[in-house]
Amino acid sequence: MPKLTGTSIAMVIAENFEDSEAVEPKEHLESLGAQVTLIGLTTGTVNGKKGATLEASHTFSDVSVGQFDALVVPGGGAPENLRIHDEAVEFAREFVASGKPVASICHGPQLLISADVLRGRTVTCVNKIRDDVMNAGANYVDQELVVDGNLISSRVPGDLPAFNAAIVEALAAAPVA
Amino acid sequence: MPKLTGTSIAMVIAENFEDSEAVEPKEHLESLGAQVTLIGLTTGTVNGKKGATLEASHTFSDVSVGQFDALVVPGGGAPENLRIHDEAVEFAREFVASGKPVASICHGPQLLISADVLRGRTVTCVNKIRDDVMNAGANYVDQELVVDGNLISSRVPGDLPAFNAAIVEALAAAPVA
Repeated sequence: MPKLTGTSIAMVIAENFEDSEAVEPKEHLESLGAQVTLIGLTTGTVNGKKGATLEASHTFSDVSVGQFDALVVPGGGAPENLRIHDEAVEFAREFVASGKPVASICHGPQLLISADVLRGRTVTCVNKIRDDVMNAGANYVDQELVVDGNLISSRVPGDLPAFNAAIVEALAAAPVA
Repeated sequence: MPKLTGTSIAMVIAENFEDSEAVEPKEHLESLGAQVTLIGLTTGTVNGKKGATLEASHTFSDVSVGQFDALVVPGGGAPENLRIHDEAVEFAREFVASGKPVASICHGPQLLISADVLRGRTVTCVNKIRDDVMNAGANYVDQELVVDGNLISSRVPGDLPAFNAAIVEALAAAPVA
């Protein structure tokens, strides 16, 4: 049986997501047997920055944190489109508070800044938002992967192998919901 | 003689600038007789998000704050590309400290966040970065134009008429360098 069979992952997306940062973790987690649910501001097609499309099957009002074992927040322009909506911010806030893994990459921490869950936490992100992460009270470090408690973070698409592996490791370590 | 003859404006640009937020203030200020100098990370062609191109004639090492009467910071993806370069951040910091007008729109305040010049200041910006502006110590308000001392700010391309008029007004009120 694949390593993640029975595991349910929430991935939050919006317009202008960074293609590889959504598609690659999704495919990697699914290849290991996990179910990945794409949650958007509306259901339907969502466009990546570089031409990829994904289908959001659920909106935030359709789901609850308790249904999922982990949250993945891809980067690009999606996080800034999500962070201006209370339901997306509240979902992220509850997820971090639940103690279950929350993995963000690139601009992904913008959603966590708006959820005000980074104070005292160590994270990385794309350097373009490092000052915002620090102003939100986080300890920013520039490395391909940072794991601080339930927060997993990486910087750029080139970090995806380490990022994906860390999500799998965190899920393997955690009890399935 | 046009209203702004003899006035010299610095506009900072980088890849993915929001087309109208650079082109329209530039053309408006030039139509009134101002000289607008486009300053980039390198000289040469810079691409807007939507197909406009502008030519950066100077880099930050070629210029000093004392040469200019005002600074304009257009939005889009340009500010996050500028804010990771010390020379761009330092230029913005010195400009704000000089007391001369500094006008930012949309994502423009990202550069001012990195320059750490927003503490206690009242500004507006695109709502996608409002939390970052607040975390940087600013008082964020949601209105088409905010003028707080030498800081002029607007939110989105639709605010450009008010934004452009405020820059002209600030220059008309200030002594020419």
